Amino acid sequence: MEQVDIDRVLAQVRQALSAGDWDRAADLVEALRPPDQADLFGDLPPTEQDQLLDRLELEDSADILEELEEEAAAEIASRLDTEDLARIVDEMEPDEAADLLGDVPPERAAQVLAAMEAPEKVRPLLAHADETAGGLMTSAEVLLHKDLTAGEAIAYLRSVAPESETVYYLFVVDEELKLVGVVSLRQLVVASPSARVAAIMDSSVIRVRADADQEEAARLMSRYDLLALPVVDEQDRLLGIITHDDLVDVLEAEATEDIYRLGGVPEEQPLDVPVFTAFRTRSPWLVLDLITAIASAAVLGLFESTIAQVAILAAFFPIVAGVSGSAGTQTLTVIVRGLALGELELRDGLHALAHELLIGLANGLALGGLAALIALVWRGMPVLGAVVGIATLLNMICAGIAGVLVSLGLYSLKIDPALASPILVTTITDTLGYFFYLGLATMALGWLV
Amino acid sequence: MEQVDIDRVLAQVRQALSAGDWDRAADLVEALRPPDQADLFGDLPPTEQDQLLDRLELEDSADILEELEEEAAAEIASRLDTEDLARIVDEMEPDEAADLLGDVPPERAAQVLAAMEAPEKVRPLLAHADETAGGLMTSAEVLLHKDLTAGEAIAYLRSVAPESETVYYLFVVDEELKLVGVVSLRQLVVASPSARVAAIMDSSVIRVRADADQEEAARLMSRYDLLALPVVDEQDRLLGIITHDDLVDVLEAEATEDIYRLGGVPEEQPLDVPVFTAFRTRSPWLVLDLITAIASAAVLGLFESTIAQVAILAAFFPIVAGVSGSAGTQTLTVIVRGLALGELELRDGLHALAHELLIGLANGLALGGLAALIALVWRGMPVLGAVVGIATLLNMICAGIAGVLVSLGLYSLKIDPALASPILVTTITDTLGYFFYLGLATMALGWLV
Repeated sequence: MEQVDIDRVLAQVRQALSAGDWDRAADLVEALRPPDQADLFGDLPPTEQDQLLDRLELEDSADILEELEEEAAAEIASRLDTEDLARIVDEMEPDEAADLLGDVPPERAAQVLAAMEAPEKVRPLLAHADETAGGLMTSAEVLLHKDLTAGEAIAYLRSVAPESETVYYLFVVDEELKLVGVVSLRQLVVASPSARVAAIMDSSVIRVRADADQEEAARLMSRYDLLALPVVDEQDRLLGIITHDDLVDVLEAEATEDIYRLGGVPEEQPLDVPVFTAFRTRSPWLVLDLITAIASAAVLGLFESTIAQVAILAAFFPIVAGVSGSAGTQTLTVIVRGLALGELELRDGLHALAHELLIGLANGLALGGLAALIALVWRGMPVLGAVVGIATLLNMICAGIAGVLVSLGLYSLKIDPALASPILVTTITDTLGYFFYLGLATMALGWLV
Repeated sequence: MEQVDIDRVLAQVRQALSAGDWDRAADLVEALRPPDQADLFGDLPPTEQDQLLDRLELEDSADILEELEEEAAAEIASRLDTEDLARIVDEMEPDEAADLLGDVPPERAAQVLAAMEAPEKVRPLLAHADETAGGLMTSAEVLLHKDLTAGEAIAYLRSVAPESETVYYLFVVDEELKLVGVVSLRQLVVASPSARVAAIMDSSVIRVRADADQEEAARLMSRYDLLALPVVDEQDRLLGIITHDDLVDVLEAEATEDIYRLGGVPEEQPLDVPVFTAFRTRSPWLVLDLITAIASAAVLGLFESTIAQVAILAAFFPIVAGVSGSAGTQTLTVIVRGLALGELELRDGLHALAHELLIGLANGLALGGLAALIALVWRGMPVLGAVVGIATLLNMICAGIAGVLVSLGLYSLKIDPALASPILVTTITDTLGYFFYLGLATMALGWLV
């Protein structure tokens, strides 16, 4: 196996550093692949990072800044002098360079751009907002004119000798830089050298507007298995391309966002975020949770005298309210993920509602029966069992309905259902659960006391 | 824009079908891209599907079977006669063909293989388990021998004229088919034609063993931005390659699995699964939830006489137990996602514990204070406020600790923490919440009655 044992190399690098042998440390780092270089580099103290950067090849320094987390890269950039930083940024992929320059103060970014050798590849990328297709794209290294032949195109490629692996799809443009086709490197290589690019290209190219959401770009790339997606302006002129590594990043970021939001963490945060920042992000959510809990507290307060007369009723709160809350969470999980993957549309809403209502009924009969049995066996009170069972059945059905209506309702209002659904659904199942349960108990009070 | 309006084409196809114009329907379908073909095809009734398959080019039929959901493809395959199915499977990508043959009865699969023109590309793939790297791989269309020159390699590529886009990385083998290097199509094209492949190739190739988990393969591909990952046996012989479209599928499947499990749905299920199947998957989880709820029910039963004396205590259950439950869920969400993305390791456990404990303390002070204030204002009882506040503070700290210990504990036992953590953490926060709250209330009973 050729996989590198990072820990072993890290130990060697530390040894070299503590012996003051900077050149050996740099050699060890240069032999690694970029993600491993960045992992190792990120674990070093700032002074050693700076010493190493002084000795690394520009290309390796560029790779490391590309691979590091945004904040870490921006911090290192802030310690470099402008000339050194400009040399490194010149070596970075244009989209990564633009991201880094977007993370340093605007004045500093302008100085770095002025000191760069080839700022023209990076400058146009700075205009696009993060989270749009334009914010994700990089400059195309090679564009083909439609009147070239396959042989001329390959000769042109040899003369440019592109360094990046973004040339598997070559985009074809006309005089006005409008996107007219795409040809794969494979097609160019296997075509007769005299064939015209316009004849072998595919002229029906999937493209995305620069101002489209990055999710739209990711959806197109993953649906059509694209290695590269061209980004155009409103006149259909080619501005850049989005490459497959960005697709993976967007997919992971979107999944992480959904998981965080479903878990009640409104904003993604690195694990080593300061405690105060974590508190600031998470506590508003808990406050919201507390405020919605007042609804169920009010229902409980309403039935204070019933509880005072039959205090054992309280023992079954976790069963009546909690289990239905879990059922509601199941429903909204299925709906939210279906919406995110594009497997569910609003027009399927009625069908989903009927489906989840039936599942709620089935679960309600099973779990309600079981809960009734537990109440009967534990306390020997058949009426208590009936109250617990019926309340659970009713609440399970409501949980299914609430899971569908809340998530699809938020979706139709263009609010991310992952963000607000869990708290709303649990509030509904809690409040209704206490209401059904204590309402029934109050009606049956004569048999319970 | 060249994006196709599927609904419009679907209407045209329906029109052609209802007019009995099968050829026009087939032409319309053939003009679409495979994922759109499959979407449209999947919406048709079986008889119309069969009529269309009779008229579509084999290549288009193969694309459709590749793109359809597994169950749908297997069902269509079961209606085709063996000869027709073999012709279509011959046109499919080897990995997709193997997946389809794995979904039909073994006897049928053997008949189809016997009727195929090129079963040798598919047969070896059938031996590998789903969810392993081997189960994900496809046969490499082109392998290069290390002694070729770049010019010979390109001439060889032209003669093979590979149809798939899997030739951007060309893997280089020796006489024993052992993997010795990789060269990109870009490198071959820009190299001097007389350069030896062995001289321009990268001999340090990242590879994966066929029996490795598919997650391991996805992790390598996404970490190192690989378009293709070679799969080898224990003798390092090249068995096949995993392509980038599989990476996207695995990433989406893994994210979906995590989201489902965190939401208490142990098994992924299509949205249109029959109600009974959904019931069978989801109800055991709810039963488990009910059983764990008995723990908190028992604590509540323990304090029956306290509740009977101060029934209004019950009104604050949702605040003391529920809000801490949400805080515990926040913690385990952050930990579970960190583990899934490889950003957190077991050795970071103590650090994570201290971190979440401090966040729990901060949240406990804020939320406990707020809860105490609500109790004070609503009921005008300072002692009740103090009991609610202190119980919330204690439970919040425990929620942070439980969120870390449960998820890391399960992870260290090789149990997916996404699967069992939510139910365990909520059980702990519920039980401890009631215990702290009613315990304190019982001690302060003299001031509360």
